[in-house]
Amino acid sequence: MPGSPLYREVERDGERDAVAVEEPLEIRVDGEPLSVTMRTPGHDEELALGFLYGEGLIDGPRQVGLSDDLAANVVEVAGPLRRDPGRRCFYTTSSCGVCGKGALEEVAVASAPLPSGPRVERSLLADLPERLRQPGFERTGGLHATGLFDATGEPLLVREDVGRHNAMDKVVGAALGQGLLPLHDRALCVSGRLSFELVQKAAIAGCPVLVGVGAPSSLAIELAADRGITLAGFARRGTVNVYAGSDRVC
Amino acid sequence: MPGSPLYREVERDGERDAVAVEEPLEIRVDGEPLSVTMRTPGHDEELALGFLYGEGLIDGPRQVGLSDDLAANVVEVAGPLRRDPGRRCFYTTSSCGVCGKGALEEVAVASAPLPSGPRVERSLLADLPERLRQPGFERTGGLHATGLFDATGEPLLVREDVGRHNAMDKVVGAALGQGLLPLHDRALCVSGRLSFELVQKAAIAGCPVLVGVGAPSSLAIELAADRGITLAGFARRGTVNVYAGSDRVC
Repeated sequence: MPGSPLYREVERDGERDAVAVEEPLEIRVDGEPLSVTMRTPGHDEELALGFLYGEGLIDGPRQVGLSDDLAANVVEVAGPLRRDPGRRCFYTTSSCGVCGKGALEEVAVASAPLPSGPRVERSLLADLPERLRQPGFERTGGLHATGLFDATGEPLLVREDVGRHNAMDKVVGAALGQGLLPLHDRALCVSGRLSFELVQKAAIAGCPVLVGVGAPSSLAIELAADRGITLAGFARRGTVNVYAGSDRVC
Repeated sequence: MPGSPLYREVERDGERDAVAVEEPLEIRVDGEPLSVTMRTPGHDEELALGFLYGEGLIDGPRQVGLSDDLAANVVEVAGPLRRDPGRRCFYTTSSCGVCGKGALEEVAVASAPLPSGPRVERSLLADLPERLRQPGFERTGGLHATGLFDATGEPLLVREDVGRHNAMDKVVGAALGQGLLPLHDRALCVSGRLSFELVQKAAIAGCPVLVGVGAPSSLAIELAADRGITLAGFARRGTVNVYAGSDRVC
């Protein structure tokens, strides 16, 4: 439902106030429930496709649509999946155990090598959050956003959601539907912190540049360095910190 | 590993910088893998217990410990669980479909009624984030925090984590281990936004007051109203917005 409002009016302290909408969404593959995520309604097909792509469960477009046998909040995707969608498994060997290195290796299997370009100016990286238009956030203060930009900083796609991972999934799903993958020569910008999972989604979508308004985690930096992604955080007020892949920054 | 550092030094732009540590943690119940979450190491047993409690999978303390047959990042919890830990199911009836109302009803089943108290002053709610000491955040800008307070605003427990849900799980797990549940006459404060899942965890832990530095979502407000929780957001610089349960605020 692309026309769904991102926010809803509520009464608060005796006045009207706008809050970000949150509702569950169930993703089904070939009729089988796969997962339930809490998201802001709208662009649900893109969310489902982007989620499956970012998890390495599909590698191209799939038939997708809102379910018509239930009221709402169910997306049906045509299978089959590339692997069993069971729980994540970060093992390397049975003697290693669950570890960050295993997580890095799992993403390496699912993602192709990145190009050496594009070259981007540090001032452009610092400026991307300003270019990330967020009408829903401006009304509610409660929505995350992800934007896809070309190498000159022109915004190509922006999506907002109460979940920052969902906003990224919606952008990747839209890019998949529009034939824009892999995202070589593009940059992604997120409104919040830079976690391992956001870097994973960028890596699998083939995007060499990821910028965030917030801080990166240790494993986000390790994964970006491992995959050759330029990772920049704290992009605010004209400055930015570069944590990995600084060879692309001029 | 309670002594684990919350942050790690990295080289960034040729200088040393501190970033929040993120590593996978696998939770096993009776030896069976249940879930993998990305978290900041430390208080892992509390995280596992708090997660299981907040999901309604256990209703009291369990034997828990770090696994000794693998290197790290695995917590073993003794079962059995109260129900099949399979995917969340927000159905009400087969004709309704996945919906927010079903999500509310699911939490209602798992949580006991709350007391009418405590009465808290609005100025105290507004001040809780200031009392939420966050040494890791101060070093990295990349950690969320949850604090448990008594009705006078004295902090009882504070936990930090790259995941805001994990920080809440660690507090609930610690409270469970210390025999503090249900959290009647207490208040919880989180450093970020107020999602449905954070209100769910507060409701199941029996806490009647939840304050956040950020915005609430629509479903967070609906669940708080349904469960009789006082929900306050945008607690900053001496002001706060009250979205539900304003009868406790004086």
